[in-house]
Amino acid sequence: MKPIGILGGGQLARMLVLESHCLGWPTTVLSPNEADPARAVTGQWVKGDPGKSKDLEKFMHGCSSVTFESEFYDTNVIANAAKSTGVRVWPDPKVMARLQDRLSQKNLFDEYELPTAKWRPVDSSQDALVAYVAFDGQVVFKKRRGGYDGNGTFVVRSDNDLGHFANQGVKDSFIAEEFVRFIRELAVIAVRDRFGGIFFYPFVESKQQDSRCLWVKGPVRETRGLVGLKKSLTRFLNGINYVGAMGIELFETKSGFFINEIAPRVHNTGHYTVDAFTLGQFALHLNAVAGKKITGRGVNTPQATAKAFAMWNLLGSHDSSALTPWEGTLNSEQSKFHWYGKSQTRLGRKMGHVNCLEKNPELALREAQKMAKNLREKIGF
Amino acid sequence: MKPIGILGGGQLARMLVLESHCLGWPTTVLSPNEADPARAVTGQWVKGDPGKSKDLEKFMHGCSSVTFESEFYDTNVIANAAKSTGVRVWPDPKVMARLQDRLSQKNLFDEYELPTAKWRPVDSSQDALVAYVAFDGQVVFKKRRGGYDGNGTFVVRSDNDLGHFANQGVKDSFIAEEFVRFIRELAVIAVRDRFGGIFFYPFVESKQQDSRCLWVKGPVRETRGLVGLKKSLTRFLNGINYVGAMGIELFETKSGFFINEIAPRVHNTGHYTVDAFTLGQFALHLNAVAGKKITGRGVNTPQATAKAFAMWNLLGSHDSSALTPWEGTLNSEQSKFHWYGKSQTRLGRKMGHVNCLEKNPELALREAQKMAKNLREKIGF
Repeated sequence: MKPIGILGGGQLARMLVLESHCLGWPTTVLSPNEADPARAVTGQWVKGDPGKSKDLEKFMHGCSSVTFESEFYDTNVIANAAKSTGVRVWPDPKVMARLQDRLSQKNLFDEYELPTAKWRPVDSSQDALVAYVAFDGQVVFKKRRGGYDGNGTFVVRSDNDLGHFANQGVKDSFIAEEFVRFIRELAVIAVRDRFGGIFFYPFVESKQQDSRCLWVKGPVRETRGLVGLKKSLTRFLNGINYVGAMGIELFETKSGFFINEIAPRVHNTGHYTVDAFTLGQFALHLNAVAGKKITGRGVNTPQATAKAFAMWNLLGSHDSSALTPWEGTLNSEQSKFHWYGKSQTRLGRKMGHVNCLEKNPELALREAQKMAKNLREKIGF
Repeated sequence: MKPIGILGGGQLARMLVLESHCLGWPTTVLSPNEADPARAVTGQWVKGDPGKSKDLEKFMHGCSSVTFESEFYDTNVIANAAKSTGVRVWPDPKVMARLQDRLSQKNLFDEYELPTAKWRPVDSSQDALVAYVAFDGQVVFKKRRGGYDGNGTFVVRSDNDLGHFANQGVKDSFIAEEFVRFIRELAVIAVRDRFGGIFFYPFVESKQQDSRCLWVKGPVRETRGLVGLKKSLTRFLNGINYVGAMGIELFETKSGFFINEIAPRVHNTGHYTVDAFTLGQFALHLNAVAGKKITGRGVNTPQATAKAFAMWNLLGSHDSSALTPWEGTLNSEQSKFHWYGKSQTRLGRKMGHVNCLEKNPELALREAQKMAKNLREKIGF
């Protein structure tokens, strides 16, 4: 059987590949740079650009099925390569297309009645002003395409802010969202197989710092609201015939839950699953992509290995050439260290993470923070 | 920093490489065949023969230090390459040289007063007859060099057996050992760092089938005899200035413990450590090879993650082209599946293993056996 192809060579691809080794499944990676984190962990790396037809088609000919680590590829190129090679891409490029544009993503939420903040399209300074007035002077402007980790996001809460945003010139297309006063941010990973089986990992609380995920802890107790949300998400995943892992980020507010954004791939807020479950998001995603059932009797579905867990991202504190964590091994009884082997440290860059398992989420988070501090001192990233 | 070099590309090298990815440490592998199990899990594979000076020296120039997965390489070639490149090999090739010959291995046991079965050298049919008489007609003949998994071992317990053995002609050099009537077989992994720190994983019971390891379970309660043995082994490891993991196989008899054989490398009887300890034998071996301290305050030494454990080897039941375990993921809450990705299934070949964690060794072994049966049915290896 031909290997599963993975588009992109970052840390998500690396973790997919490492999981495939554990499963004993062959995988192959298409990415542009020799220094890409996934390159170091596979003998089946192909140099190339997933955005270029020629590279992609050649790569896909050698694959049984294909998945990706980023939703920001050219979906026409992918869809055409899938057609010409007869190799399926999961999740479907059509879904990628609808989610990579925040406007069509919001339309999708509305179509499936998924709760989300009020929004409107913004294509000019005039639109921005209208949105500012409509949302009572509390607006978040988000670039429609290519935004990530806070890049392309502008919070406007005063006339001054608005002036600042509008003066830059609204060159790109944006959406404006009503600013959500949240109690906390939550996230959940859902994985759907080709037969309609869906597995939800638990809801987690997530903490952002400078618009980047800093930590998650969980599980979060499932209230009636969250149970209802899972039902809505199930209808949504079935409705779009989704296959694979999806990361869903939420706001918890006094008036209920709002979906902030979703990503059609394995997700940073699900990294804890690798150590806190018998099958993590990477394994389950590969199962779905390979056409396996992921739920039901006689089939291995993920089971929790601990009462509670936390994940702490190891974010670069400065720019420098990459460091190797040679300072011995860095696990404790409760915690597991994960390092991405990036070729350069950069301020705010995700260099690795640490997962902790404990009796309750607070203990786990405390342990994770302690380990993260420890690791920063030892490795100096 | 340059990567750690690994000589050989089999499952032991594969597991060393996978562990290096978890640690975030770069490694590189030298092995002859593209189909070698370690090849699939690294971007730093070098095609070549660790037994050839030219291949080895070229490889070692790119390494910070070097280790190996097999003790059957040409130690002169390795020692010369180490000298000409200035790169250290751990454990030292001198130790490999003394252990790869069963006669000098036995001499080493005697030198360090390690308990072992009575023995004598055999270089002719005449020697064989003398040994048979000396050991009361209960002898095991073992080829001095290159024997493994029962290959090169002949149990002689009757005149008929002796005739059969002697008639084949004693072309190779052998040693004769008094046949040991054991209660059970035990094994232990010891790891020593460059500073004299030694970590012993627990003693385990091991079961051989057709001279191959079928399973291990543990931990075995440490009697006074075993505590004494650890002291002797400590003297031995310090005496030969050993660095890295060593696999030690024992017989438990009515009159005490006898060392059967030792291997200067990570060992099949230690595979359980990957899941039953915070740091398994592969991680600890790499730590020792990289020059890290593996014991002492403020340093991470392995801690048990379960009360008891078992490991069951997945041995090929027939000859055929290799299978990929595509049948979904194959872990349970108590058990973890490991697959080596070999290109061909062969009768008795080690294709993978399963580790189980449980409250006691018997429960763990039962679970491991159940999972192994399950996996055989699903994968058909």
